[in-house]
Amino acid sequence: MSHPLFERHRATLDAALVAIRERGYWSAYPEMPSPRAYGETAAADGQAAFEAHLNTAFELDQPGTVGRVGRERSPFGFDLGITYPRADVDVLLPAMQAAMPAWRRLGAEGRAGVCLEILARLNRKSFEIAHAVQHTTGQAFMMAFQAGAPHAQERGLEAVAYAYRAMTEQVPSALWEKPQGKQDPLRMEKTYTVMPRGVGLVIGCCTFPTWNGYPGLFASLVTGNAVLLKPHAGAVLPMAITARVCREVLAEQGLDPNLVALAVNEPGSPLASTLALRPEVRIIDFTGSTANGDWLERNATQAVVYTEKAGVNSVVIDSTNDFKGLVRNLAFSLALYSGQMCTAPQNLYIPRDGIDTEDGHKRFDEVAQALAAGVDKLLGDTARAVEVLGAIQNEGVVRRLESAAELGRVVLASRAIEHPQFPAATVRTPVLLALDAARDEAVFTHEHFGPIAFCIATDGTAQSIELCKRVIQQHGAITAAVYAADAAVIEAMREAMLDAGVALSENLTGGVFVNQSAAYSDFHATGANPAANAALTDSAFVANRFRVVQSRRHV
Amino acid sequence: MSHPLFERHRATLDAALVAIRERGYWSAYPEMPSPRAYGETAAADGQAAFEAHLNTAFELDQPGTVGRVGRERSPFGFDLGITYPRADVDVLLPAMQAAMPAWRRLGAEGRAGVCLEILARLNRKSFEIAHAVQHTTGQAFMMAFQAGAPHAQERGLEAVAYAYRAMTEQVPSALWEKPQGKQDPLRMEKTYTVMPRGVGLVIGCCTFPTWNGYPGLFASLVTGNAVLLKPHAGAVLPMAITARVCREVLAEQGLDPNLVALAVNEPGSPLASTLALRPEVRIIDFTGSTANGDWLERNATQAVVYTEKAGVNSVVIDSTNDFKGLVRNLAFSLALYSGQMCTAPQNLYIPRDGIDTEDGHKRFDEVAQALAAGVDKLLGDTARAVEVLGAIQNEGVVRRLESAAELGRVVLASRAIEHPQFPAATVRTPVLLALDAARDEAVFTHEHFGPIAFCIATDGTAQSIELCKRVIQQHGAITAAVYAADAAVIEAMREAMLDAGVALSENLTGGVFVNQSAAYSDFHATGANPAANAALTDSAFVANRFRVVQSRRHV
Repeated sequence: MSHPLFERHRATLDAALVAIRERGYWSAYPEMPSPRAYGETAAADGQAAFEAHLNTAFELDQPGTVGRVGRERSPFGFDLGITYPRADVDVLLPAMQAAMPAWRRLGAEGRAGVCLEILARLNRKSFEIAHAVQHTTGQAFMMAFQAGAPHAQERGLEAVAYAYRAMTEQVPSALWEKPQGKQDPLRMEKTYTVMPRGVGLVIGCCTFPTWNGYPGLFASLVTGNAVLLKPHAGAVLPMAITARVCREVLAEQGLDPNLVALAVNEPGSPLASTLALRPEVRIIDFTGSTANGDWLERNATQAVVYTEKAGVNSVVIDSTNDFKGLVRNLAFSLALYSGQMCTAPQNLYIPRDGIDTEDGHKRFDEVAQALAAGVDKLLGDTARAVEVLGAIQNEGVVRRLESAAELGRVVLASRAIEHPQFPAATVRTPVLLALDAARDEAVFTHEHFGPIAFCIATDGTAQSIELCKRVIQQHGAITAAVYAADAAVIEAMREAMLDAGVALSENLTGGVFVNQSAAYSDFHATGANPAANAALTDSAFVANRFRVVQSRRHV
Repeated sequence: MSHPLFERHRATLDAALVAIRERGYWSAYPEMPSPRAYGETAAADGQAAFEAHLNTAFELDQPGTVGRVGRERSPFGFDLGITYPRADVDVLLPAMQAAMPAWRRLGAEGRAGVCLEILARLNRKSFEIAHAVQHTTGQAFMMAFQAGAPHAQERGLEAVAYAYRAMTEQVPSALWEKPQGKQDPLRMEKTYTVMPRGVGLVIGCCTFPTWNGYPGLFASLVTGNAVLLKPHAGAVLPMAITARVCREVLAEQGLDPNLVALAVNEPGSPLASTLALRPEVRIIDFTGSTANGDWLERNATQAVVYTEKAGVNSVVIDSTNDFKGLVRNLAFSLALYSGQMCTAPQNLYIPRDGIDTEDGHKRFDEVAQALAAGVDKLLGDTARAVEVLGAIQNEGVVRRLESAAELGRVVLASRAIEHPQFPAATVRTPVLLALDAARDEAVFTHEHFGPIAFCIATDGTAQSIELCKRVIQQHGAITAAVYAADAAVIEAMREAMLDAGVALSENLTGGVFVNQSAAYSDFHATGANPAANAALTDSAFVANRFRVVQSRRHV
C-alpha cells in the first residue's frame, strides 16, 4: 500500500517524470494570478496574510532558539519590521539529525508524497509568497508571483521528479542467482536502501529566494536529508513562510518538523560560512557571489557543494530579418527586473561596421541607439515601467549604476522613476554603454550586476563569437544569445557556446526572452562554465544527495 | 542509422541496462579461463604475449614522450624489466584535449559502441592481462584472471551502462509549445547536447589495477572525455596493455588515439599529485591510501574527484547455526590474496563470553582457535595454499606483517611458504591476533593492510554492533558482515550498518565471501563512509562526468 500522499499526488509526479524526459512544455501550478485558478478571495487573502506578517515576530517553534533577528526592508521603500528566531545551531543541528531516521524509513514514495503535498500547500499560498518576494527582492508583483510562487514550485517539483527517478533506478530488493555448473546455484537476496547524507544547507540570494532555493530544498529533502534554510538577510520572509509550510505538513504527517528549519542572520553578521563548515552539514546549495561560491567549493569539503555564481551573460548580434523584433525583445530583457536576473544579458557584441537587417544595413551606433530607443519606449509610460522594472534590491546596485557612466560612452543614461504606488521605492532605468572590444576588455569581463549593459564594438562576428566564448570560459555565464540571418553564423555560435558550456537562445524576437528558463524543459545553468558548478535541475544535481547501502543474505 | 559498433554490441548494452536495474546475476564475459570460452590456444597465447613483454620497451606512440621509465618487479620474485614512455604532460595533455571534439560529436551511441568494442578486445586478451595482473599485484593466477580480466571488464561495462543511461535520460531535441490563450502558442525547438568536462585522470592502485581502474576509465571515456591512466608504479603493465587496446580501437575507428594515454612514474618519483592539479584535468578517479585520497578531495578542486581509500572491514559474530561453515567461510576470506583486498575483513568482534552454535556454546578463545585452525587447514597443502594466498605485493605489507605480533596476543602466527613454481616469491600466511575492545581501540581503529586480522573481545553483541558502527563511521569500511542465528540481532546489525553506510553480508557460510562484489548487483563501496566518496558503480559516479548544454530557437 502506497503512502496516501503519494497516491494523492501520483499523477502530478508521473507527469513531471515524463516532462523531464520529453522536455516539452508542461506545468503543474497555474502561472496566472487569476481568481479562476486560485479562487475569488485568493488575491485579497494573500495580501492580508502578507500584511499580517509586517511588524510582528515570525514564530517557527524551532528548538535552539535564542532571541530574535531580522532587519528586512522592502526595495519599495518601507521596513518589514519582522523578526525571526535566532538559531543556536549547536542545538538545532542535532535536532535536525535526530529527525532523519523516521524520514528515511518513510521511503522514496512517502517522502515524494510529503514533498508534493508541501508544494501544493505552497501553491495555495502563492499570493502571500508573491507579496513576500516582491517586498524583499524588489520584483514587480507579476514577476514576484510567477517566478516567486508557481515557477519556483515547478522547479521544486522538477527536483522531486529527478530525485525520485534517481532513487528508484534500482529495485529495492533482488534475487541474485549464479549458476554453478551441475551444482545448485548460489542464491542470495539483496536489499538496497536509499540513505541520506546528513543536513542539507540552502544558502539563498536576495533576488530569487524561492526560485533558486526550492530546487536544493526539495532535492535534499526528498532524498531523506534534513534541510536548513539560510536565506539572504535581505530576503528572509519568503523562505520563512516556506519553512513554516514544510514544518506544518511534516507535523501533520506525524513526522518531526525539524526536518526543515530556518537560520537567519542580519546584514553584516555572516552566518553562512559558519554553517557551511559544520560537520553535520553534508550538502550545500548556494546562490550568490563568485567569491563566496568559490570559497564554499574549496573549503566546505565535508559536503557536496552546488553553486550558482556570477557570470557575464552575452549576446552576439550578427544580422537579423526582424530588427524591430530584435530591439523589442532585447529591450525587454535588459529592463526586466532592472537587469537583476542572473540570466539578464550584459555584453552585446556588435560588429563596429554594423549589421545587415531586413531594413538595410545599420551602423553600430544605429543598433545601439535603436536598443536605447527600444528601452525608452518600453519604459515611457511610468505605470508600465514600474511593472517591468520593479525596484532596485540594494544600495550596492544603486552605487554600481551611478558610477557606470564612467565605464564607457553612455548610449542611454539611467534615470530614476517615481513609483506611483510606492513613492519611496528605488526605481531606476537601465544604463546602456558603448565599449570597444580591444580597448575595454577589463570592463566587460566581469559581472556588473544590475541594469547595466554594454554594446561592444568588435572587428566582426568572428571576433564577437570568439570573444564571447573566451569570456564565458574564463568568467562564466548563465545565458547566451545570438541574432543572425545566416545559418552558418548560427551554427558557428552553437559550436562556440557548446565549448563555452552555456545555454544558447537563437533569434529571439517574439514572446520568449533570453532571461527566461522553463522548468522541465530548460536546464538553468549548465555546470560547464564558471558561473555555476551545477544545473537546475539534472541528474548530477540529485544523484549524490543520497547513497545506496545494501545488505545480502543467502536464501 | 546507428553507429556500426553500437549495433554490434547493442544486445550486450541492453542486457547490462536491465541488469543494473534488476540487479540479479548477469555476466557478459566468461569468468572461467576455459578453452571452451576463450579458445584452445588462448591460454598459451596469453602467456606467450605476457612473456614477450618482459625485458622490452613497451611502445605506445604517444605525443610528448621523453625517454622511458619503469621498474616493476613481480611479487613472485623477478623483475619485469619493462620500460614505458615517459610523458611530457605539457605536450600530452593538450593533445588529449584536441582529441575530444570529434569524440564528443560521435554521440552517446557511437561512444558506447566504441567502448564496448574496447571491452570485447580486452576480453580476448584476458589471459595476457591475467599474467600481467598476477606479476604486478601478486594475485594467484585464477584470481588475476577473474578479477583482473572478465570481472574488471564487467565493471567497465557496468560503468558504460550507467553512463549511457544517464546521457540518454532526456531526448536529444524537443518541441516546446506553450499555450497563449487565444493567441498562437509559443513554439520552440530545443537541442540538448552532452558535453564532456575535460581530461579524466585515473590514478591506480597496485593490487587491483584493472578492476578498480576500469570503472573510472570507461565512465569518463564514454561520456566524451579523454582519459589519462596513471597506474601505480608497481602495477603498470595491465593498464599499459589496456591503453594500447583503447588506442588501437580508437585509431581503427578513425578517432584520435590520444583520447586514452598512459603516464608512468617510478617508485619514489610522485606524479599523480602533479597531474591532479593540472587545469586540463577535470575528473579524477583514485584508488589508494586515505592520506592521498583526502589530499585529492581537498586540493584538486578544479576537478570532480572520486576516491576509494582505506577502511576497517568488520565482522560481528554473535551466534550461528553452522559454525563449521562460518569458520570455513571466514578462513577463506582472511587468506584470499593474503588479505590484500580492499574488501578483506580485519576486525572480528566476538563476545568475550563466547557465542552459541549448533554445536553448543563456544568460548571466545575457542572461536578464535577455530578460525586459526580453519586458516591452517585451508593452507595446509602448499600447492593449494599458494593458489589462495598469491604473493605479498610489496615490502610494506611484509614489514607490517612482521611487526604485527606486537599488536596483541597471537592466536595464529604468520609463516612463510615456499612457492613450488616461483621460489623467490614472497608468500606469507595470515596472522590472527586476539584484542580487547576496551584496551586495544588504538590498534583496531585503522587499517592494517595485508593478512592481519583481529579477534576483538567485546562485552557482548550490543557492544560489538555499536563499536563496529562507530569505527566505520569514523574510519570507514568497504564491507561488513554479521553472523547471528537470531533475527533480531541481524535486524539490529542491518540498521547499524545502514547508519554506518556500509554494505552488509549476513551469515555467509557457503560459496559467497564477504570479499566478493558482483558487478551489476553489488554496489562496491557506498560513498557513505570515510572509506570512499563514491560507489562502483552508481548514477552519482557517472552523472557529473558530463554536462548537458542546450540551444533553443523559435519554429
